Amino acid sequence: MKELKGACIIAQSGGPTSAINASALGAIESALDNPCITAVYGASNGIRGVLDNRLFQMDKEDREELAHLKYTPSSVLGSCRYKLQDPDTDEADYKRILEIFKRYDVRYFFYNGGNDSMDTCNKISKFMLKNHYECRVMGIPKTIDNDLSGTDHCPGYGSAAKYVATSCMEIYLDARVYDIGMITVIEVMGRHAGWLTAAAALAGDYAPDLIYLPEVPFDVEQFISDTAAIYKKNGKAIVAVSEGIQDKNGKFINEYGISSPQTRDSFGHAELGGLAATLVSMIKARRIFGSVKVRGIEFSLLQRCASHVASQTDLDESYAAGKAAVDNAVIGITDKMVGFKCSRDGGYKCELELLPLDVVANTEKRVPREWINEAGNGILQGYVDYAMPLIQGETLQQKENGLPRFARLKKIVAR
Amino acid sequence: MKELKGACIIAQSGGPTSAINASALGAIESALDNPCITAVYGASNGIRGVLDNRLFQMDKEDREELAHLKYTPSSVLGSCRYKLQDPDTDEADYKRILEIFKRYDVRYFFYNGGNDSMDTCNKISKFMLKNHYECRVMGIPKTIDNDLSGTDHCPGYGSAAKYVATSCMEIYLDARVYDIGMITVIEVMGRHAGWLTAAAALAGDYAPDLIYLPEVPFDVEQFISDTAAIYKKNGKAIVAVSEGIQDKNGKFINEYGISSPQTRDSFGHAELGGLAATLVSMIKARRIFGSVKVRGIEFSLLQRCASHVASQTDLDESYAAGKAAVDNAVIGITDKMVGFKCSRDGGYKCELELLPLDVVANTEKRVPREWINEAGNGILQGYVDYAMPLIQGETLQQKENGLPRFARLKKIVAR
Repeated sequence: MKELKGACIIAQSGGPTSAINASALGAIESALDNPCITAVYGASNGIRGVLDNRLFQMDKEDREELAHLKYTPSSVLGSCRYKLQDPDTDEADYKRILEIFKRYDVRYFFYNGGNDSMDTCNKISKFMLKNHYECRVMGIPKTIDNDLSGTDHCPGYGSAAKYVATSCMEIYLDARVYDIGMITVIEVMGRHAGWLTAAAALAGDYAPDLIYLPEVPFDVEQFISDTAAIYKKNGKAIVAVSEGIQDKNGKFINEYGISSPQTRDSFGHAELGGLAATLVSMIKARRIFGSVKVRGIEFSLLQRCASHVASQTDLDESYAAGKAAVDNAVIGITDKMVGFKCSRDGGYKCELELLPLDVVANTEKRVPREWINEAGNGILQGYVDYAMPLIQGETLQQKENGLPRFARLKKIVAR
Repeated sequence: MKELKGACIIAQSGGPTSAINASALGAIESALDNPCITAVYGASNGIRGVLDNRLFQMDKEDREELAHLKYTPSSVLGSCRYKLQDPDTDEADYKRILEIFKRYDVRYFFYNGGNDSMDTCNKISKFMLKNHYECRVMGIPKTIDNDLSGTDHCPGYGSAAKYVATSCMEIYLDARVYDIGMITVIEVMGRHAGWLTAAAALAGDYAPDLIYLPEVPFDVEQFISDTAAIYKKNGKAIVAVSEGIQDKNGKFINEYGISSPQTRDSFGHAELGGLAATLVSMIKARRIFGSVKVRGIEFSLLQRCASHVASQTDLDESYAAGKAAVDNAVIGITDKMVGFKCSRDGGYKCELELLPLDVVANTEKRVPREWINEAGNGILQGYVDYAMPLIQGETLQQKENGLPRFARLKKIVAR
């Protein structure tokens, strides 16, 4: 494969995770060390930074400071939820991207994100090809939702899963401390796929009594009777629900209490949240529970940014994925997403593999039905065997004064 | 002092913390090792376990398993919020306690709790004295609220403060990741004292922009204009509020949105919660913020049970407090609470001291006004210097399969 000299842009998109900066670091370090790559830019706020000509010079950063990125949550370059137009209807964004690529002699583009980002990669790559501009485009996956097709799992998922499992264990002990009845409803992120909510099952003996994923239609009456049965038996009940649970007609349960039309984000997704409160109200409204104390807990942003409890396995794999994207692009690969191929028999093994972008983009991998119990309110051993290796290893995050030491970048804008 | 042979009861009360079991362990281990103490009982659910004759035999537990208590959150013996009657009006509970003490030859009573528990200790001690039953009673403090008088700080506070500071740092990075306006309101526990909310300031460069404690009357208009000023300047604003903030008339802000009478707990305290949602609504209702994204985050139970991020300093001190209660009782001390006397000049030093129960009971120590800025929306260096030593040291909690290893007790009930 012929050598391609030029600059590279690394960009981050979608919801942040505890591990996305580990991937960025893998890509940045490999790019800085590779003589083919003449300059290393980080785009501010994903593809918006390219459109707005706001590129940070990563080669001006201190290498030791950059190394802290592995343990710094959220997207250090900033993220966006901007969706490019379909190039068949409107080429303006793509023309602008090409203009910026030419201005900085960008020959490598690495996009670190979820489904939508892989789609963006794919479209940019096709546009550059059509316009005879040589540029290698690689996707680096990340999502706490773990819903990307083709890969065994996604960078960022293991850390979020470790947070969910750990927090469920702690809540289990706290929520049964009093000699009074108590029902606790825990709301976990996950719009269409229940991977992160399923992680509650990793808490084992301390797992919630009931776990509901969006993969199975949610029936309010069944939920009430499931909860009542547990509560009657134990005097306590802990329920974990995915924010995306829907009834058999596809209506989100957290919309049950909402009369006004839902706000939608720029991708047309409904903005969820407040499900725990909705379910708490439903329980309180039923006479069968008497005057039980009912509490809703939303893990909210913490489940995606709690880097202090990140999985070191996840951070190491995320770093490797970022590094592999650059390493492979330099030797001539393009239009691929770095994925993981894992085996679990006889010990966990994880290998990197390259997947075609168009296969990955815009499809969602959901929790297999056979990993959910028949009643649709619990998680089976198949999932536990799958996910347990992903949460292993305590983060090597450095502490300063008893608190996390995050990377402090200069972020010098290229002119 | 004459030697007193007999059994001891250790009980836990009030809201649990990540460190209360460390204190229990200190007391249990010292009691098990002391020849004066003939049997070691743990009361199930605080004073209720005594009244209900439900005592666990701690001497039947495996010592190695007990050792995990130092790193196990929540109250392993169970807690209660039962308040004993005033003995001048109703002696029934006290007579029952005396009966149980006599049945098990209990000569030592250790109560691990907050203000109300110290009051309970005090009343029990006085009743025993009046009835010529020799019994030594010691209080072991615990509260994430840090509001006990006489002691420099309370066991449990350092761990909760470390959770709050760490989580605020992580949220800081996450909440400014998008290229859109965003306001985040974080609700922290603390009914009358703002100690735990003040811990948000420990996040330093990553601290919330505004911090409101219940020590200063809260003015909604001032809050809106403070937030608007920060938001206008930065495009983001993060606000931390104590659940107990009240207006100048003493009305809780989270009652602003509630038309029905508040539920109150068994001590007559109003049940708080949902403040973040109330403030989020207030912001959204104002036109000056436009269509900014506003998010409320409640730390909920996690702030008091997240043992995976406990302060090792706190765990060590909590253990020492429990041990000191037993050590001192055995040599003849009674009617005291173990407190901390600390100095910070030339390095942090913490010594144990014994405080009279009646001084500690039923008073609340609040954050000094001079540690809060003049505007009442920020925390000054005096507090940071005070609290920073308390969050030092990463927990030595053992992990099993990447998750916390909690103590697994047999809890054999005495007959």
